[in-house]
Amino acid sequence: VNYPGNVKKNYQKEITYGNRGMTLESMINEANDYYLKEDIAVIYKKPTPIGIAKVDYSNMKITDAYFKEPSTLDYNGLYKGCYIEFDAKETNSKTAFPLQNIHKHQLDHMHRVLNHQGICFLIISINNEYYVLPGLKLLEFISTTTRKSIPYEYIKQNGYEIKYNYLRGLDYIPLLKRMDDRL
Amino acid sequence: VNYPGNVKKNYQKEITYGNRGMTLESMINEANDYYLKEDIAVIYKKPTPIGIAKVDYSNMKITDAYFKEPSTLDYNGLYKGCYIEFDAKETNSKTAFPLQNIHKHQLDHMHRVLNHQGICFLIISINNEYYVLPGLKLLEFISTTTRKSIPYEYIKQNGYEIKYNYLRGLDYIPLLKRMDDRL
Repeated sequence: VNYPGNVKKNYQKEITYGNRGMTLESMINEANDYYLKEDIAVIYKKPTPIGIAKVDYSNMKITDAYFKEPSTLDYNGLYKGCYIEFDAKETNSKTAFPLQNIHKHQLDHMHRVLNHQGICFLIISINNEYYVLPGLKLLEFISTTTRKSIPYEYIKQNGYEIKYNYLRGLDYIPLLKRMDDRL
Repeated sequence: VNYPGNVKKNYQKEITYGNRGMTLESMINEANDYYLKEDIAVIYKKPTPIGIAKVDYSNMKITDAYFKEPSTLDYNGLYKGCYIEFDAKETNSKTAFPLQNIHKHQLDHMHRVLNHQGICFLIISINNEYYVLPGLKLLEFISTTTRKSIPYEYIKQNGYEIKYNYLRGLDYIPLLKRMDDRL
């Protein structure tokens, strides 16, 4: 994982994996806050996985710790009794989404979630547009190609575009109906 | 939160909230590993919520951080398409489970999960026995009393005892069928 050196002040408030994901993350957080407030869905960002090496017990401060690689996706929760899990991914490329952004463990996890009838997807930010890409479409793409990135056109054709709304944030829940008959 | 000072070496591997919860946690982890391996359910412990104050970017080490109060429960995932969320709680008292072990935010969260048709419960270790206490039974108890602890008898009558199994750990999944018709 490549952490840019110039995002120090972001870490003061909350950890983000580089500044790329930040705007996307805050737009998703806005939507999740809206869902909670309006009692539409219950979806949280999981805490960043951190390994702790040293704790100062006099004041319960952690003085030595490190980032761990996530084996699941960043967000999960429930909507209409259904299990929801997704990750937010941003790319600067205008033509394709690089697959190196997704770890092998995370792909295995997506397989499992889908097998157990969970609703699993990515929210991809590309070309200043935002797409829900169903987990099934992602796994299908990977299983039928050796390409190292997903073309923008594939995302456009197989994903559902989310429009940012200043009251509701990146309101992705309505699009999930198109992915699952239960919703 | 009271962190005993003599558990330093536990922190080398993985953070635990004091050594009380440790045995219970490892027995639950065994069950979750078994469920993953046998493809029965997909349930993970969430990372401990940590606030990060300082990062050394030369080696990506976290040099200053602190424990945050959790607003959700520690474990979640899915089983047969249903959303599962629970917390593991241990008490040394033989007569009652102290409610101060559960934060207000967590109770609010349990309410929401149940309203959205999630399956929500506690796994309580008391008197060397282990019980699944349904969230609804917990919330009912709290709403009808001003007591600061749940009597052992209430847990026995309204919960389901889990027996530890050396192959499957604290195999709680079969007991959930009694809590929900969908399972």
